[in-house]
Amino acid sequence: MMAAMSLPSRLLLGPGPSNVHPRVLRAQAQPLLGHLDPVFLGILDEVQAALRDLFGTANPMTLPLSGTGSAGMEAAFVNLVEPGDAVLVGVAGVFGERMCEVAARCGARVERVATEPGTILRDDAMAEAIRRVRPRVVAFVHAETSTGVRQPVESIANAAREVDAFVLLDCVTSLAGLPLAIDAWGIDAVYSGTQKCLSCPPGLSPASFSPRVLERVRARRHPVQSWYLDLGLLGGYVGSERRYHHTAPISAILGLAEALRLVAAEGMEARAERHRVVAAALLEGLAPFGFEPLVEEAHRLPMLSALRLPERIEAAGEAGLRRQLLEKYGIEVGGGLGPLAGRIWRIGLMGENARLANVERLLCALRRELG
Amino acid sequence: MMAAMSLPSRLLLGPGPSNVHPRVLRAQAQPLLGHLDPVFLGILDEVQAALRDLFGTANPMTLPLSGTGSAGMEAAFVNLVEPGDAVLVGVAGVFGERMCEVAARCGARVERVATEPGTILRDDAMAEAIRRVRPRVVAFVHAETSTGVRQPVESIANAAREVDAFVLLDCVTSLAGLPLAIDAWGIDAVYSGTQKCLSCPPGLSPASFSPRVLERVRARRHPVQSWYLDLGLLGGYVGSERRYHHTAPISAILGLAEALRLVAAEGMEARAERHRVVAAALLEGLAPFGFEPLVEEAHRLPMLSALRLPERIEAAGEAGLRRQLLEKYGIEVGGGLGPLAGRIWRIGLMGENARLANVERLLCALRRELG
Repeated sequence: MMAAMSLPSRLLLGPGPSNVHPRVLRAQAQPLLGHLDPVFLGILDEVQAALRDLFGTANPMTLPLSGTGSAGMEAAFVNLVEPGDAVLVGVAGVFGERMCEVAARCGARVERVATEPGTILRDDAMAEAIRRVRPRVVAFVHAETSTGVRQPVESIANAAREVDAFVLLDCVTSLAGLPLAIDAWGIDAVYSGTQKCLSCPPGLSPASFSPRVLERVRARRHPVQSWYLDLGLLGGYVGSERRYHHTAPISAILGLAEALRLVAAEGMEARAERHRVVAAALLEGLAPFGFEPLVEEAHRLPMLSALRLPERIEAAGEAGLRRQLLEKYGIEVGGGLGPLAGRIWRIGLMGENARLANVERLLCALRRELG
Repeated sequence: MMAAMSLPSRLLLGPGPSNVHPRVLRAQAQPLLGHLDPVFLGILDEVQAALRDLFGTANPMTLPLSGTGSAGMEAAFVNLVEPGDAVLVGVAGVFGERMCEVAARCGARVERVATEPGTILRDDAMAEAIRRVRPRVVAFVHAETSTGVRQPVESIANAAREVDAFVLLDCVTSLAGLPLAIDAWGIDAVYSGTQKCLSCPPGLSPASFSPRVLERVRARRHPVQSWYLDLGLLGGYVGSERRYHHTAPISAILGLAEALRLVAAEGMEARAERHRVVAAALLEGLAPFGFEPLVEEAHRLPMLSALRLPERIEAAGEAGLRRQLLEKYGIEVGGGLGPLAGRIWRIGLMGENARLANVERLLCALRRELG
């Protein structure tokens, strides 16, 4: 009576989601367990431990939040910020802009240090602003998904520590593609997404919060404005009490557990090297077409390349060529966001997709289309 | 090197999650599509249309929110409430209590009308409070998952309309198990969960909002405190613009699409009747053991039965017997929440699980354990 679902096969080379490993797909298709089942709670413990390894942290409060990376961003701000707090945001693209918006909705006095799209935040500009504003929270993005910039972290974090600010870092696109060491870097709050270098479907936000953040939550004068994302309440479920808060997204967590096993089996160092090698092959292969990296070499992300379009493609409108790639070749690449819309492409080689064969497949398709 | 994931088989007869249909499991294990892929957007349109049918609404803003049912509750309040607004909540159990908490975190002046656990909110008490308080929002729960009570809706909604209040209804446990007619009932904001009578994994909150709610959001003096759940922003993605907001939980939506096809193929009337018949068989089968329904017959939910424990089980501590059922028979049933902890069981026969064979399996296990 009903047709079985039959979807086209896609190679997802945009800014996320990336393709999911068949083992992760199978894991999330396992029959369900209850969210308080001891077997499921054991898997949740395993996920938390594996995420601690990947983030480079000993934070007990390391968990997959029940929403996408954007919910992770919201969780970080709603727990840390009280009305009237000063929050300094480093804005190097769309996701830094989003931080300003989310912080403002928590009642923060938002100060910003902005930089040109495609460039990093300058340490001196951030340090100067931190000393001037003396904010409660300093927030910025490690891997700016709108521009492909890899932001150096430590110097800004050190400056924030000097004024006793909390450091909030967006690692949506970097987790499981770049080695992270958030404890060594002095990061208090970090969040990511599952659909980038972890190669899971979107829907969860791996996140971690320092004990200092939890103290801050306990000492708040106003309750956290989000009940759903209140770390004080979430701690009752992911901690030893196992108190019901909301029903965990069980299947998605089963998939994440399997993805984290794949990451551990490969090893983070080998995985980072794979991303690096494949990104270099992409840029080399695209150069003859006239694609030019937006970002200078030292600050490029390996898992996401932002490329200025060749003149003839920009002039003809790039959306048509992206549609051709999708419809004729089953390949998705990403366009630009915000001020870069129509001017760049964003090509992701993330997690399972960071393979030379995928670079070849894209280059072949482009050769056919562009001659 | 790594063991394949091997999970125990569970029959989930608690208050949710329920077991997932194999076709839904397969659908959510399909290779991924991008969240802006035209094929995926077509499936999202299909999901929205099917949800309109199930809710009984013409609301264009009918969508699966990217979080669990608790995120749906939060979405309803953060969009409707501005600081200082009066919100009247009918409290008939834990989920009504949660509404008070969520509304307060939006800055609402919360007024409550409470009733004994296991009983419905009385129309006259609600109408009197509505006329006295003249609230901006009247909120209550259709199917109170903590007590198994089915709340009559229309009379309260009518009283709310007389003072021009918005009506906010929790249908987490009723959607796809009871026929809903939210337009005919005069409901402005409604949310549900996927892990109850839809028999999907937890992780999405099907929800619907009247055009009047969207007008209210546009006319707000303060921005919606949640960026993630702001209906004004979400409308840019689920509407015709297809503007990126956050990355939709693609796999979960593929699963939901398949579940909604199964519901449509059965038909809501037949599905509701199946729930009713199976619930009656459960109560009949449990009576000889001394389990007594907490709720009087006219107000019982078909998909979730709250049962007072036989004295000997309550005296011995009910948790041990639940553990036996889980470990020896693979059957999960739910304990009581809040004031009913240790005093009742909650047995769900939801969605795919509402089958006479499941009732028999539970009764057999209880006969073995209780003699």
